[in-house]
Amino acid sequence: MLLSDNISPEYIKSLDLAGKKQLCDEIRAFLIEKVSGTGGHLASNLGTVELTVALHSVFSTPDDKIVFDVGHQSYTHKIITGRYEKFGTLRSAGGISGFPRSTESEHDAFIGGHSSISVSAALGIAKAMKLEGKPGNVVAVIGDGALTGGEAYEGLNNIGHDMGNLIIVLNDNEMSISRSKGTVADYLTRMRSTRSYYDKKEAVKEFLSHSSVGKEISKSLSGTKDLVKFAIYQSNIFESLGLKYYGPVNGHDVGKLIEMLEIAKITGEPCIVHVKTKKGKGYKPAELNSGEYHGIPRRYSRSAGSRSFSEIAGRKLAGLADNDERICAVTAAMKYATGMEHMAQHFPERFFDVGIAEQHALTFSCGLASQGMLPVFAVYSTFLQRCCDQLLHDAAIEKKHIVLFIDRAGLVGEDGETHQGIYDVPMLTGVPGTEIWSPFDEATLSMCIEKALNDTDGIAAVRYPRGACPSGGPDEYSDIYYSGKTSDTLVVTYGRLAQNVSGIDGADTLTLLKIFPIPEEAAVTAAQYKRVLFFEEGMRIGGIGEKFLYAIYERGFSGKYRITALDFPPAAADVETQLSRAGLDRESIVRAVNEEN
Amino acid sequence: MLLSDNISPEYIKSLDLAGKKQLCDEIRAFLIEKVSGTGGHLASNLGTVELTVALHSVFSTPDDKIVFDVGHQSYTHKIITGRYEKFGTLRSAGGISGFPRSTESEHDAFIGGHSSISVSAALGIAKAMKLEGKPGNVVAVIGDGALTGGEAYEGLNNIGHDMGNLIIVLNDNEMSISRSKGTVADYLTRMRSTRSYYDKKEAVKEFLSHSSVGKEISKSLSGTKDLVKFAIYQSNIFESLGLKYYGPVNGHDVGKLIEMLEIAKITGEPCIVHVKTKKGKGYKPAELNSGEYHGIPRRYSRSAGSRSFSEIAGRKLAGLADNDERICAVTAAMKYATGMEHMAQHFPERFFDVGIAEQHALTFSCGLASQGMLPVFAVYSTFLQRCCDQLLHDAAIEKKHIVLFIDRAGLVGEDGETHQGIYDVPMLTGVPGTEIWSPFDEATLSMCIEKALNDTDGIAAVRYPRGACPSGGPDEYSDIYYSGKTSDTLVVTYGRLAQNVSGIDGADTLTLLKIFPIPEEAAVTAAQYKRVLFFEEGMRIGGIGEKFLYAIYERGFSGKYRITALDFPPAAADVETQLSRAGLDRESIVRAVNEEN
Repeated sequence: MLLSDNISPEYIKSLDLAGKKQLCDEIRAFLIEKVSGTGGHLASNLGTVELTVALHSVFSTPDDKIVFDVGHQSYTHKIITGRYEKFGTLRSAGGISGFPRSTESEHDAFIGGHSSISVSAALGIAKAMKLEGKPGNVVAVIGDGALTGGEAYEGLNNIGHDMGNLIIVLNDNEMSISRSKGTVADYLTRMRSTRSYYDKKEAVKEFLSHSSVGKEISKSLSGTKDLVKFAIYQSNIFESLGLKYYGPVNGHDVGKLIEMLEIAKITGEPCIVHVKTKKGKGYKPAELNSGEYHGIPRRYSRSAGSRSFSEIAGRKLAGLADNDERICAVTAAMKYATGMEHMAQHFPERFFDVGIAEQHALTFSCGLASQGMLPVFAVYSTFLQRCCDQLLHDAAIEKKHIVLFIDRAGLVGEDGETHQGIYDVPMLTGVPGTEIWSPFDEATLSMCIEKALNDTDGIAAVRYPRGACPSGGPDEYSDIYYSGKTSDTLVVTYGRLAQNVSGIDGADTLTLLKIFPIPEEAAVTAAQYKRVLFFEEGMRIGGIGEKFLYAIYERGFSGKYRITALDFPPAAADVETQLSRAGLDRESIVRAVNEEN
Repeated sequence: MLLSDNISPEYIKSLDLAGKKQLCDEIRAFLIEKVSGTGGHLASNLGTVELTVALHSVFSTPDDKIVFDVGHQSYTHKIITGRYEKFGTLRSAGGISGFPRSTESEHDAFIGGHSSISVSAALGIAKAMKLEGKPGNVVAVIGDGALTGGEAYEGLNNIGHDMGNLIIVLNDNEMSISRSKGTVADYLTRMRSTRSYYDKKEAVKEFLSHSSVGKEISKSLSGTKDLVKFAIYQSNIFESLGLKYYGPVNGHDVGKLIEMLEIAKITGEPCIVHVKTKKGKGYKPAELNSGEYHGIPRRYSRSAGSRSFSEIAGRKLAGLADNDERICAVTAAMKYATGMEHMAQHFPERFFDVGIAEQHALTFSCGLASQGMLPVFAVYSTFLQRCCDQLLHDAAIEKKHIVLFIDRAGLVGEDGETHQGIYDVPMLTGVPGTEIWSPFDEATLSMCIEKALNDTDGIAAVRYPRGACPSGGPDEYSDIYYSGKTSDTLVVTYGRLAQNVSGIDGADTLTLLKIFPIPEEAAVTAAQYKRVLFFEEGMRIGGIGEKFLYAIYERGFSGKYRITALDFPPAAADVETQLSRAGLDRESIVRAVNEEN
């Protein structure tokens, strides 16, 4: 066994090629074993074992910097850089993060939870190193999925020719989480298939300079000579963007990878190394269906018979679309995760997967809406953050009717700080004319979707948590569910927390189904109490709790008021632990109710 | 005179080429005369006169759709489509908007205040039209500056080959508001200089098929034949993105433009028409310095002796940078408008204009900060909305110390709903660990900048309004400026409104200089009053006023509380009118104080 607690970047460098290959096999076996236990991103990490070993063979972190984009391909990097022994704590409370974190290790150059930022971050790092006179290379490792995000292009567009210490490694596995979308993806596919593209180009160059036909061309084409030259040297989209291009290279051949990276390192020009990898490499189930194995929850199983909020929302939407030809579904590379495969299956012409491109998704939806269609953008809460401006500018000002299915709202557990769905409420309530619902079971989810689609004329958002959805629920829609007045204390909450307050002793309960604008009935009801305790699975600042106080204060409230909510995004842990740490579990709520105040 | 109130798309179509040319000249003269009076974007509109006449010659709005990106090139379009007589009301209260507004005219296909959204919007419109069986073309007119924004690329990447009714017109004036940045701009410059690029390509194609040398090439190159073919047909970055390319064409030759657009219209494939224009065309002062003439305020003059907040901030920063080598300045195509030209001039190696690419600007700043540099991103409040996710993910979670100079915060006047700086407070207060200052004169601006740079360790924002900065100010820094207790009523405010409350009768006053987190001293002081009136030049929902109530309520406040703030972004008018409509002018505030409550 080469893989042991001795593993380090220096150790990697000491191995010969055979040793490196063996180490890759051992890391791959280790990942399969461990990630089945810890949960996490298996397929993407199996795809980058050789690439990461090659990177640490050629570069020396932390003096050289490696920025992973997105970070869920960085497990091998973590194993190599001091986190082998702790690897069993991956994504658990107090354990190591599932994403690169500069606060966790000096070998993690930049945070890496959200996609498409690596080029921009690497460019900032490289510029700073230059200004500070620090030597060293900066490597951005970006997947073909992340490359569809607009910020990646903004970054590529800003690489100057003086950035000779900057290397972009394109980890091209021919798919993002859903399959890569768009013409860039098509383009990469074509480049992958021209196996010896780079060699051919060199050959042409050689040919033109030396062969007689080549000279003939040079002579005869005269006016078109520049064009041919231009066409040959600039025929690659990356070279159009000013980057020297190397590749494609087999991403599972550690020897070839090292060779290519060595060339990139000495070239002295900003460059892109195009690496072809296979997601799930070496683990048959993941190779065959890497989509399903993209993210593995701890203990890989679904609780029998329970369906997720996403699944129910997706089916419900497809059902409504059957009777309403205006309904379209838009997703940003999350077809399966958001349950939108039902729309894709039944109404393919009204289903749009735009790739990792949330800004485009939102404006595109507004374009659809401007012509009378009824678009539903299904998106994780944390990724909705990408289109704040589009909500304000494209949707709100002219009151386009678009619907947001905000999935993974609230605490998401093991993915940690970067993925919590706790900012959509502060963000969306700031967008004029937005209405927000927060269902908590199958019946309310269904009713809220109908409300959002049919009873509003601006931005309508339905937000729901990750995971299993309680079946059943109320028979009829109501903006609020109120226990009735039997006490001086009222507990107010919404969403998943409804379950943690239902039937508690010593307080009445009011659950908001429509959370914004705050229903008049809720404000009037709560204003009568001597004590109102607001529990919110989201950020305190900008949350509903703050707005609720203003609403009841305006209506004569003069009692005690307390908000229990989040003050900072919680670190990775299971959701129950996160709720309990924040004082949002049933036990804490009961304790708060019973406290003298 | 051809330009009269008879002007319409039909009238344009009825003119012969000579008539169209004459009309263009008349429109140009009209624009120069009118915009000098109304204020607005002169140079960009002088650049698109012939293009717009050509578009209306070939296409028929509203059945065909034209999406302008950004909209400040749409004046000729407005003149042609029913707004000739109202043109004198441009950007004034009750007048026509300076940007396309679908609520203003059915000829304005999509709202167009912010940049880089046109391709996404046009794609949504085109898809909807297809689904609804509507005929017609969709044209996106995008400037080379807007093309540097990531969303433009997300849009281009999502154009499918079935979008045959979609035409992208690239209005390439070789500059954005500041000069276009990045490799795409360089690339366009190269394409502009290959004057007959398209002809040459056709010539090569012809040549290879028919000439003997061409056949020789085909025969001899065998293995490389595909490459040559690929290189010739795919040598254009837009063609790499799956778009047929036409151009470049002289954007001031209305005849050639019409020809090219006719070809694009009948091609049946999604395509890009590359149009070369000159900003400020036909008006010497604007041609020579189109940057200065980008946006002309109503009555073009600066009040003598007064300097803007931007100018003072820019000079102050350059002064600090002289003694602190960590300080860098980042701007997204707003070098002059944000006063950052002083950094550019004195410390060019620490000045970065990244083009219209706010997402990149923010992540890039975080990259700089990760290596110990101290980046200042100077950005308009309204454009900061573009990088909400980057603030949350890249900056906040690992507490990178970056400074935001938020320019044009608060009401901005004539630019209307799309450009108001009234969302940055709700957005930024939702970003954990952010500190925000709101200076109101020269002295406080200077002190806040020092605080933000040197006394914080996370995101530090200094926000200030457009326009002239009052000189002088307090001698010493304090988080709050409080009049002392002489009354039962306290008026609380911040920023520019400080001037509207100073010395009013019947109430004490408290001005927040640090607005978030709310200073403890402010909360304790206000909690003692019987009546607190909070005036805020920003959105009510998510504003400081809401948070202030929670802060004082926690500290025992039990009096009357009222927030006066904005409930919806105000339409174009001068700032004084906007303030007065919102009840934020001095007179309204005095009235509110004197009201029985």
